[in-house]
Amino acid sequence: MKLKQLALISLGLMAATASFAQQKAEDLIKTRQGAYKVIAWNVGRIKANVDGQFNKDEVLKAATAIQALANAGLGALYAPGTEKGMGYHETAAKPEIFDPNNKKIGEVAGNFGKEANELAKVAATGDKAAVKVQLGKLQQTCKACHDDFRQEDHHH
Amino acid sequence: MKLKQLALISLGLMAATASFAQQKAEDLIKTRQGAYKVIAWNVGRIKANVDGQFNKDEVLKAATAIQALANAGLGALYAPGTEKGMGYHETAAKPEIFDPNNKKIGEVAGNFGKEANELAKVAATGDKAAVKVQLGKLQQTCKACHDDFRQEDHHH
Repeated sequence: MKLKQLALISLGLMAATASFAQQKAEDLIKTRQGAYKVIAWNVGRIKANVDGQFNKDEVLKAATAIQALANAGLGALYAPGTEKGMGYHETAAKPEIFDPNNKKIGEVAGNFGKEANELAKVAATGDKAAVKVQLGKLQQTCKACHDDFRQEDHHH
Repeated sequence: MKLKQLALISLGLMAATASFAQQKAEDLIKTRQGAYKVIAWNVGRIKANVDGQFNKDEVLKAATAIQALANAGLGALYAPGTEKGMGYHETAAKPEIFDPNNKKIGEVAGNFGKEANELAKVAATGDKAAVKVQLGKLQQTCKACHDDFRQEDHHH
């Protein structure tokens, strides 16, 4: 095999590897965008219940889904290579969320998990007023993370 | 107020209502597409664990997320008005899934919920071989629904 042939094969493999990495990154970005969309849907359902007619079963299902996603390990969806680029839409993640030395990340993620676990507990009691208070606490943790780590002009 | 003015206001309101309905439909379609993306991510994580190194904690988190979504009431995301159109991408749902008299829908959804509940139980035991078997059963319920209700040329 000639050197030129080897070089061409090597270039082809590099292109294929880059393309695979890009596809994988797009998939991870789509997944995290999808996860937040599903969380927002469930937050909205609970909000509709505490502001209107309260269906304990629906609230508990929604709170359980939020809890499971909050504890699922969404951090894995911010793998290296996913700092920029398209998922379903251009990522709205700020560069700061990819800094392994940023202690704020563990803090906001921990608070989200803590309040989501508490919301699931409160939802199980069926106490509408208590659910309303706890939903507010959860939403504060969403806002805290968005304030620090989401570009407001990018998401939709 | 003249009749012509009233007619114009009325037309404006109708356009606004139609636009709101379309936005709401797009949001529901995005949410269901996001939910399946998140389910697929978690199925993929469990598959990687049963095919390679097994991390009980990761498998349990993933199985819990699938279970919570399977029981969240995803059927609400197939509300009237969402039969066609764009979410993150063109919906891949077949018209059959919007037929309230189609008994197959409850059957496939029920099987998905049943196997997802069982997968979460098996995941809690940490038995790799049993998780592999149960994941296969869950995937069968995914396939059964896709075969009947998903247009294979539309999804991505």
